[in-house]
Amino acid sequence: MNIRPIILRGSAIVAALLAATPALADTHIDNIEGISVNRDGSIDRFAGMVVDEDGRISELLDFGDRPTRDIEYRVDGEGRVVVPGFVDGHLHLMGLGLGTLVLDLSQTNSLDEALSRIAAYAAAYPDRPWIIGRGWNQERWGLGRFPTAAELDAVVPDRPVWLERVDGHAGWANTKALEAGGVTAATTDPSGGRIERAAGSRAPSGVLVDAAMPLVNDAVPPPLPEDRDLALHNAQSLLLRHGITAVADMGTTVEDWMTFRRAGDAGRLQVRVMSYADSVDSMLLIGGPGPTQWLYEDRLRLNGVKLYLDGALGSRGALLNADYEDDHGNRGLPLLSGTQLRNLMSRAALDRFQVAVHAIGDAANRDALQAIEELSGDYTGDHRWRIEHAQIVDPADLPRFGRHGIIASMQPVHQTSDMFMAEARLGAGRLGGAYAWRSILEAGGTLAFGTDAPVEPVDPLAGLAVAISRTNADGEPAGGWRPQETITREQALAAYTAGAAYAGFAEGRFGSLAEGERADFVMLSADPLMASPQQIRDIRVLETWIAGQRVYDFALD
Amino acid sequence: MNIRPIILRGSAIVAALLAATPALADTHIDNIEGISVNRDGSIDRFAGMVVDEDGRISELLDFGDRPTRDIEYRVDGEGRVVVPGFVDGHLHLMGLGLGTLVLDLSQTNSLDEALSRIAAYAAAYPDRPWIIGRGWNQERWGLGRFPTAAELDAVVPDRPVWLERVDGHAGWANTKALEAGGVTAATTDPSGGRIERAAGSRAPSGVLVDAAMPLVNDAVPPPLPEDRDLALHNAQSLLLRHGITAVADMGTTVEDWMTFRRAGDAGRLQVRVMSYADSVDSMLLIGGPGPTQWLYEDRLRLNGVKLYLDGALGSRGALLNADYEDDHGNRGLPLLSGTQLRNLMSRAALDRFQVAVHAIGDAANRDALQAIEELSGDYTGDHRWRIEHAQIVDPADLPRFGRHGIIASMQPVHQTSDMFMAEARLGAGRLGGAYAWRSILEAGGTLAFGTDAPVEPVDPLAGLAVAISRTNADGEPAGGWRPQETITREQALAAYTAGAAYAGFAEGRFGSLAEGERADFVMLSADPLMASPQQIRDIRVLETWIAGQRVYDFALD
Repeated sequence: MNIRPIILRGSAIVAALLAATPALADTHIDNIEGISVNRDGSIDRFAGMVVDEDGRISELLDFGDRPTRDIEYRVDGEGRVVVPGFVDGHLHLMGLGLGTLVLDLSQTNSLDEALSRIAAYAAAYPDRPWIIGRGWNQERWGLGRFPTAAELDAVVPDRPVWLERVDGHAGWANTKALEAGGVTAATTDPSGGRIERAAGSRAPSGVLVDAAMPLVNDAVPPPLPEDRDLALHNAQSLLLRHGITAVADMGTTVEDWMTFRRAGDAGRLQVRVMSYADSVDSMLLIGGPGPTQWLYEDRLRLNGVKLYLDGALGSRGALLNADYEDDHGNRGLPLLSGTQLRNLMSRAALDRFQVAVHAIGDAANRDALQAIEELSGDYTGDHRWRIEHAQIVDPADLPRFGRHGIIASMQPVHQTSDMFMAEARLGAGRLGGAYAWRSILEAGGTLAFGTDAPVEPVDPLAGLAVAISRTNADGEPAGGWRPQETITREQALAAYTAGAAYAGFAEGRFGSLAEGERADFVMLSADPLMASPQQIRDIRVLETWIAGQRVYDFALD
Repeated sequence: MNIRPIILRGSAIVAALLAATPALADTHIDNIEGISVNRDGSIDRFAGMVVDEDGRISELLDFGDRPTRDIEYRVDGEGRVVVPGFVDGHLHLMGLGLGTLVLDLSQTNSLDEALSRIAAYAAAYPDRPWIIGRGWNQERWGLGRFPTAAELDAVVPDRPVWLERVDGHAGWANTKALEAGGVTAATTDPSGGRIERAAGSRAPSGVLVDAAMPLVNDAVPPPLPEDRDLALHNAQSLLLRHGITAVADMGTTVEDWMTFRRAGDAGRLQVRVMSYADSVDSMLLIGGPGPTQWLYEDRLRLNGVKLYLDGALGSRGALLNADYEDDHGNRGLPLLSGTQLRNLMSRAALDRFQVAVHAIGDAANRDALQAIEELSGDYTGDHRWRIEHAQIVDPADLPRFGRHGIIASMQPVHQTSDMFMAEARLGAGRLGGAYAWRSILEAGGTLAFGTDAPVEPVDPLAGLAVAISRTNADGEPAGGWRPQETITREQALAAYTAGAAYAGFAEGRFGSLAEGERADFVMLSADPLMASPQQIRDIRVLETWIAGQRVYDFALD
């Protein structure tokens, strides 16, 4: 993509604030309602903290306590609620950033609205060789089918158009894009992928699912390095605005990693990044003989690798134990065979790289659990095997999350986004282990919560609201969807902070407000442990601090 | 390669010394015969220096001078000669290091001796799936032809054997290796490469030249990351032992770069590395929108890209304006077309990446000079276009080195290694601009000297001796080969220090002993500005210091 720079508003402010905040000085942050949350959900409260010149917490102070020594610089917290910075246990950092540079269709509510936005965008950027976008969702549109190339051709006939579905598991092309990708009636479906065809014909109808997406995607001009740097900048601005101070980046490419390092080398990496490479090859190239060090004062580490075992529910790519209720004969698309999965997991675990397995359907989750159990015999010690999403689990498999230190890396908002679709895909009888964070926690599993941005909005507070209520922004369904799976506010906050940090081997560095940890915290407009789900959604992030430096201020945004 | 670690001796010593030398303290190095050389060959002498806690020179002291303030730590130089650390303007860092892990044939003097070493090595390592080696030279053996697969089969029939020629421009395979590479009588010569054939047959005889080498080379198991880390460690030990404190790495792969970064991140990168990527793709992946920052306190920077325009004289791959004297009808193998060269140079120069063009034959040098002249119109400013080797230049082209700030990156020892071969390849009448460092300097070009290790030994003092005498270690030919091209000791030392640093945009950081530069220096057993060529070859590096830290001590080696 050769894209005109779109610099998000927060960025200049961040730079200005950084300059205004004293660096390398001990700081006393006073007059706050501090909340420290531990991984088990236990809570400590405090009224002030002292941050040393390395950005670490050296003292937590009760109300009325004075620091044990004179601190030159004092910040008055004005009585605000302070919680640890949110740790996003699963997102796509460069996808989030590059998404700020392309057409965003995620808020469109009908096909017509989407087509009208696409037409306007193409008219606004006549020089761009491709029109790239993302975020469409035919379910949200109530379309009842995938959109078509012909519909796109009607608004952009002259250039390729390539638009990723909201979940990243399908792409929508116009005819020019299908041509650029060489997709014709003669093209067979690649293994693990599907080319949607016109009814009664082999002609491609415009949508490519999962492993068929690269047919067109590989023809898209790659982003320029300058675009990548700008994308990372924009992504950080978005994250800081939402109080996220650390992330697990799922599927880091070598290009992504180089972008992170450029930012780190230049002092432009603010958000802490726990990286999971997009392949074992990338993992070995980046890490070499093992995970990297923690670089840039705990701001970057390659932890391991992300492996994709199945697709998503929306595109019916998730691997199920039985047929899709709304697509008989289809049980999803395996992206790795059982043998491939085990070989890749072994290669990673051999050198103590961490393994994060994407598993959405109940068959994928069962296979991931089975593989972990098999490998745990050979690879003992603290591996913190991660299962990403763990959306649909057979209830019989839920107890297995309590063994071998498994981490369930879940994104609460998927539950409210997907609940009606999940009922359609699976039928009510197969949802006993769906988005089952409480059952997993009670089985002894470790929860790490995340947003899955840009698949879902960058909004950890919305995630907290869902986790404790199983209701969406409209408060629906009344009483919550399968409300037996709600957890407490404290448990949810832990999963979004200390739990997600632990899931990336970052405990003791960040994720809690405790002596010796980095002073990463947010000031909120209300106490999320006291608020209703709706009130939690309305909480504002007033300030975000990383390593004792204010990096976002709502008042200036 | 899965190779048993071979840790060079110097390494443990280096670690011990590092621990013994006080870090982060001002140091007064006293009682030395200091020589500071400027890029123009002018010399300043001094008797002491003060190094600050960042490893930079804060004061140079004359005899009898005291530092302007009290310095807690004093080192007695015992009257030793101190010169700037050597800057190697052209070598292959990982090749040098990986070479320490494979069979070294560079000292063999006959085919029989080589075969006997290969047999012994294979017997010593029965578990290695491949026998890998380098350094053979059929010219040194007086063989008059390339060796054959059959000769290798006689000593190692059971496993693939793959041995690179001393100049890296040809490889010698046994039958198993040819099979692994799929090289048969039916294989056609790839563009830019040649498969040697048995006389009167199309059957491959065992040697693959230039662009044919990947046929087998790509089948060799790649080194493990652990091997790469060990290789870099060993390479640094070799360099420090020879007083080299900074290098230009020519042809850095992404894997190499990751190895450098791992070392830098872990504080194991001692030698300063100016990196030139092996392709424009690698350059863009590593550098992104431009050259990287100077990383790790001036120890690593991606400057630009190395482009290969032709091969070498030994394998008759160098591009000549007329036929090889000893191979009529052959003018060498172009590795890039003129258009390709200009496109790649443009892409690099556009983002201020530096371009280093490998050019050995007179036709390649002419094309490189021509391309620089054409591009200098569009890409103005300080580009420091580099021509690597510049071995055979048409005398009519020599003045062109004085324009557009061109740097001739030359390796003096090639002159004595190649002189008789060059006469055979070109005939006496076409050597008017051969290894013509004096003419290039007088034309106004900038010289950067290097070793080209591992193609030649890691020995800058031998390079100095050649540069001023044009004689080899035996003092031959008497009076020097084309002695009108000798330069002064001061000019040669400048090309091996300040000149090579300038050639990598490092002036002001290292390469001279001057206030504000890093305190990188060597203590020598004699003054190279006063010694005869033979005495220069016998000078010992007694100590090597980088950033005011002693990193090599001959007394402990």
